[in-house]
Amino acid sequence: MKVVSTNITVRYAETDQMGVVHHSNYIVWFEVGRTDFIKELGFHYAEMEKSGILSPVIDVHCSYKKPTTYGEVVTINTWVEDYDGLRVTYGYEVKNQKNEVCVTGYSIHVCVKQDSFRPISIRKHLPDWHEAYEKLKHK
Amino acid sequence: MKVVSTNITVRYAETDQMGVVHHSNYIVWFEVGRTDFIKELGFHYAEMEKSGILSPVIDVHCSYKKPTTYGEVVTINTWVEDYDGLRVTYGYEVKNQKNEVCVTGYSIHVCVKQDSFRPISIRKHLPDWHEAYEKLKHK
Amino acid sequence: MKVVSTNITVRYAETDQMGVVHHSNYIVWFEVGRTDFIKELGFHYAEMEKSGILSPVIDVHCSYKKPTTYGEVVTINTWVEDYDGLRVTYGYEVKNQKNEVCVTGYSIHVCVKQDSFRPISIRKHLPDWHEAYEKLKHK
Amino acid sequence: MKVVSTNITVRYAETDQMGVVHHSNYIVWFEVGRTDFIKELGFHYAEMEKSGILSPVIDVHCSYKKPTTYGEVVTINTWVEDYDGLRVTYGYEVKNQKNEVCVTGYSIHVCVKQDSFRPISIRKHLPDWHEAYEKLKHK
Repeated sequence: MKVVSTNITVRYAETDQMGVVHHSNYIVWFEVGRTDFIKELGFHYAEMEKSGILSPVIDVHCSYKKPTTYGEVVTINTWVEDYDGLRVTYGYEVKNQKNEVCVTGYSIHVCVKQDSFRPISIRKHLPDWHEAYEKLKHK
Repeated sequence: MKVVSTNITVRYAETDQMGVVHHSNYIVWFEVGRTDFIKELGFHYAEMEKSGILSPVIDVHCSYKKPTTYGEVVTINTWVEDYDGLRVTYGYEVKNQKNEVCVTGYSIHVCVKQDSFRPISIRKHLPDWHEAYEKLKHK
Repeated sequence: MKVVSTNITVRYAETDQMGVVHHSNYIVWFEVGRTDFIKELGFHYAEMEKSGILSPVIDVHCSYKKPTTYGEVVTINTWVEDYDGLRVTYGYEVKNQKNEVCVTGYSIHVCVKQDSFRPISIRKHLPDWHEAYEKLKHK
Repeated sequence: MKVVSTNITVRYAETDQMGVVHHSNYIVWFEVGRTDFIKELGFHYAEMEKSGILSPVIDVHCSYKKPTTYGEVVTINTWVEDYDGLRVTYGYEVKNQKNEVCVTGYSIHVCVKQDSFRPISIRKHLPDWHEAYEKLKHK
């Protein structure tokens, strides 16, 4: 399975008055991991958008096991969990420097036309991406 | 079932380059809804924290059905979906001004001691909250 | 002088581990105040963007006098401090419920074409806005 | 003059519907630069907080010259602009990969006791930091 790792140094602004990272930030970190994963596949999300196709999230889930704190360097591991030609499910894991799993989660994405937000088939409209995701599934 | 409604005017800073609200903001809006729900129950989350008890999220889920946009007034509906003496599950629904459901989700919370982040029983340590949540369950 | 007041209930996610609102959020609140100010003038920023004109910030300043905290209701007062046909300077003041000034600031804005980010004259391209801002100056 | 450089890859969540980075994020990036600067000096801000001393911002200024966009790698340059035993002024500059200055700014900080938010003298209470900042001034 292809897993891409991204390091993030926790920002002060990402903490809340509990003294730990606010839970909404992990959703942002997942996105940072996803960006890196896509780049490692040889694609660029920004270029896809320029061609008039967006890839919004339709579902996100996050399980919090251990807090992370300001100054820590955390690792986001990202992989493809599922793909059916229309929807991609990415899996994520956030680990701290002791290699403890702090947060796990997934997000499901479709592709839509920028002007209408109407879903399109990745298989048909983005054949290169389709091929890459199919290969990941069979690994 | 007790449902508390909170209106939020979408901020410009909450949008992203897709031209719609970035998906991580709904997690923040759920929290705004939860704060209002707790206030309506007659409690104050800030006071609970002052007594040395925090209530972190252990699980969050979000389903995105329709985007929301800058300037719109959206309504967050919040209710208690489940409670077992240890964990509270809040349910959420974000509606736009056409009364369309844009986002649904839930979050699960425990209570922990501020100094140790060790979970405590709500039933034992917060009897007033316990009673209120038990009543909500049986409505 | 026309001053528009906007109430904001401080969100948990807006705090940081200092236990108070993170300083970057005031910049977002200024924007919320500005949106309301513009609406009170009879304009809609979102519609201006649809016509292909954006109004980016070119300068922002913020002075922090007193912290604000989760759950507080703060008031953002917004006014026009200066206008010269090209640039608008908005002034801001954030007050807490004891009527203490917590933060003051200003932001300077120009108008640009969406496609090129090239500055345009408000006087020439947005005559209605120009007239409204001229009137504000002479109050 | 000691200048510390920090690279940041622009996050999708940091953009807004203008298609560029929302202006409030530069304040967060300044803070990331400041954290690195302090670490390079041999100090750790997190440890200072554990000893009961906070260093809130009392003034921040930001000038926006060029927008930055999703996926770009930007460099934050941070230095000490002024220091008087009580207040530290940090200077910042954000450059893009073409080495163009996109944003400049500064922030002024004091030190306060965590419990009272009362300002304290850096000279008296943090002699190691005082010495380091004095040296920076005379470079």
